[in-house]
Amino acid sequence: MQTTICAPATGPGQYAVSLVRLSGPDALSILHKLVHTPKTFPPREQVFCRLYDGEKVLDEALVTYFAAPRSFTGEDVVEFALHGSPYIRGRLLELLCAHGAQAAKRGEFSYRAFVNGKMDLVQAQGLCDLISASNKAAHDLALSSLEGRLSEKLARIKTALTDVLAQIEVRLDDQDEELPPLNAAQTEQTLRAQIASLVQLADTFSVGRYIKEGLKVAIVGAPNCGKSSLLNALVGFDRAIVSDQSGTTRDTVEETLDIDGQKVILTDTAGIRDHALDPAEQEGMKRSLHAIEKADAILFVADLTRELTSQEEALWDDVQRASKPTVLVLNKTDEAPQGRCHLEGTAQYTVYVSCKKGDGIDGLKKQLRAFVEVPSAQVQDGVMISNLRQYQAVLDAQTELESALVQLNRDGGLELYAEHIRGALKALKDLTGEVTPDDVLDVIFSKFCVGK
Amino acid sequence: MQTTICAPATGPGQYAVSLVRLSGPDALSILHKLVHTPKTFPPREQVFCRLYDGEKVLDEALVTYFAAPRSFTGEDVVEFALHGSPYIRGRLLELLCAHGAQAAKRGEFSYRAFVNGKMDLVQAQGLCDLISASNKAAHDLALSSLEGRLSEKLARIKTALTDVLAQIEVRLDDQDEELPPLNAAQTEQTLRAQIASLVQLADTFSVGRYIKEGLKVAIVGAPNCGKSSLLNALVGFDRAIVSDQSGTTRDTVEETLDIDGQKVILTDTAGIRDHALDPAEQEGMKRSLHAIEKADAILFVADLTRELTSQEEALWDDVQRASKPTVLVLNKTDEAPQGRCHLEGTAQYTVYVSCKKGDGIDGLKKQLRAFVEVPSAQVQDGVMISNLRQYQAVLDAQTELESALVQLNRDGGLELYAEHIRGALKALKDLTGEVTPDDVLDVIFSKFCVGK
Repeated sequence: MQTTICAPATGPGQYAVSLVRLSGPDALSILHKLVHTPKTFPPREQVFCRLYDGEKVLDEALVTYFAAPRSFTGEDVVEFALHGSPYIRGRLLELLCAHGAQAAKRGEFSYRAFVNGKMDLVQAQGLCDLISASNKAAHDLALSSLEGRLSEKLARIKTALTDVLAQIEVRLDDQDEELPPLNAAQTEQTLRAQIASLVQLADTFSVGRYIKEGLKVAIVGAPNCGKSSLLNALVGFDRAIVSDQSGTTRDTVEETLDIDGQKVILTDTAGIRDHALDPAEQEGMKRSLHAIEKADAILFVADLTRELTSQEEALWDDVQRASKPTVLVLNKTDEAPQGRCHLEGTAQYTVYVSCKKGDGIDGLKKQLRAFVEVPSAQVQDGVMISNLRQYQAVLDAQTELESALVQLNRDGGLELYAEHIRGALKALKDLTGEVTPDDVLDVIFSKFCVGK
Repeated sequence: MQTTICAPATGPGQYAVSLVRLSGPDALSILHKLVHTPKTFPPREQVFCRLYDGEKVLDEALVTYFAAPRSFTGEDVVEFALHGSPYIRGRLLELLCAHGAQAAKRGEFSYRAFVNGKMDLVQAQGLCDLISASNKAAHDLALSSLEGRLSEKLARIKTALTDVLAQIEVRLDDQDEELPPLNAAQTEQTLRAQIASLVQLADTFSVGRYIKEGLKVAIVGAPNCGKSSLLNALVGFDRAIVSDQSGTTRDTVEETLDIDGQKVILTDTAGIRDHALDPAEQEGMKRSLHAIEKADAILFVADLTRELTSQEEALWDDVQRASKPTVLVLNKTDEAPQGRCHLEGTAQYTVYVSCKKGDGIDGLKKQLRAFVEVPSAQVQDGVMISNLRQYQAVLDAQTELESALVQLNRDGGLELYAEHIRGALKALKDLTGEVTPDDVLDVIFSKFCVGK
């Protein structure tokens, strides 16, 4: 990198401190221009100094110099801990630019760290996810990526594939056929092991996504069976408008819930308007179907005080067909303590609740939490993917290896065989950023925050 | 201080970094509880380490230890530079409290710095002002307080008064009258010099306040002479609703302007409603008078295309009576390039403008800037006060010294004379915090931001 970049690293507003970062070959010389009396900056030490704006003092700040390559970006970095005034921060950035620095683009510090080999793309993605993690589960997942555990797992697969590829390539070069033929059985075994690892990784995508983005739960059921009341009971306050008159949920209502550090997004979807006429009711049902399709899990609410209608039976069939984790929520135990529902026999999970009194709500929350916890506990070594780009790369690698196996069994040319393994390696290297084109990198890093 | 306190030092939201500070006797031992493998923390060095939440890693952070007394608070301080996720910050604060720290109150770090003699109350106030400074002038003023220049000036006055007091007290104790009598002429000279310093300091209050809080400028004039257009022309965009129909400024309109680093608060006050009837017009005039009273400076706008009405003449008299810096702004030079106004003879400053074309607006801005710049340039040594509490303490000290002089000239008892000098010293020590009661300190520091 020829340029030196600068950006704030902390948020705006009046707080005790604000941090500004400067990274690049001129970082130290730019710093010296701001300090009137010559000073030494031993690496990593916070040095108290006066920063000058012309002849006037701009601020008394703590300044730390990180010498390349022992810095976040791998370049020379200077960090300014300023008094937290918007004026000082803004003016320092102006002065840095006047002295030759450039304002950093979003994610440019991380991009430089990546280019300088301080972290790969998977770790960079983990860093980005870490900063936006708002709950414990998402945080743990992001930190495991940042620490390089996913990268290590991918590295093992890449090493195995590179070994196989080397054995093929040496034989492709072996014009005189001096080498023994490829041990097909052993090669197949190696490839199958890598495919298994990739499949296992791909399987973590759904739970990884639940953790990172939240488990999407649709609440479905007939009008007036208590869907809005259930949403309120789960969230703990009166968010949706609840009335005894059926069809008062005016639109799709969405609420986010934190259950023991796991994000859960609840959607109440009846969408049936006041004085609903038949067409509107049908519209409501359509919305329910759409919600079922988009959800990760479903809560089907039924009213224990009455028999199910034929519409409810039909909706239950739709829910069953969706093959998603489903809880049959039997409401109004306060009014019908002996009430039973014949669907219970066909339900995966059943929970009896009284939304009015709050009975059974904790049990239902535990069940929702289990929809994430159980599969995530089953993930070997805790390494998961949670990012669509990563998921597609893993699937691509898997497809290439399966094609390679077909090729192997067809006893076809080694060249085609090698080509598929190269394809799988390319997909995996794309994932860690080893062969990712610049424009793709631009898109990835532009999702980062400024100063990171 | 027995307790160890913690608080975030940077703002919330997703940014690259967030800082958390820990100060007190247990800071280092609490840090060690968060780090699994024993580590050494050389003072002021940023050490990379993993912080643990039980068995799991919470974050990979840069941690700096500042050993007492070489820290902001004068106590042992630990600063955590975390990845900027709200989750990590919140969780670290929870862990610090679980390990024995307490959440800091607003201003508690600065309060400890004050108690431990790292800065006096004037500097602490400067620090608070520095953080909230949003423009260059306010920033420079606050920094000069923080650097201790006002404190030094006060210290010189206190030293002189303490000397005089010592000379009196030694004579009060001199039962056998062995000492020569007090040199009244010399003492009077010393006291007059201190009074002069205090008067000079008190005189800086108005310009200090302009700088810190902004110069309040009222725009007054008859309906439809172009007050709103002037406001827009000064601010540079269409903020007030402007129409050709008179009386369209619906309420008091306030805009803040930065003129070369000086904050100026413009108020357009006509307050005359659509289709204004007489009572409303009168209400508008009342508002104008109120605005003139509250303002630091006045812009009186007149329309060059027509003669002044008797109402305008009356308003001009009101403005003159207010004895405040006033500019006669003669508008519509585009329509009446030869127009003149007979008030010009009585006006302090006159500026010809065309709000429509923008002519003359820069000159008007320069004049407004001069209302602050000229008096502030006249302030000897650049030391000013900008805070009402400080202003009152200076006035109190001045009053006590003047009473002492009266006492001296009356040739009264030395005891009463000493009492007034003690009173002046107490007022000045209250200003720097040497004798300020705890409850007053609580009020002062509670205006600081958390983490400072």
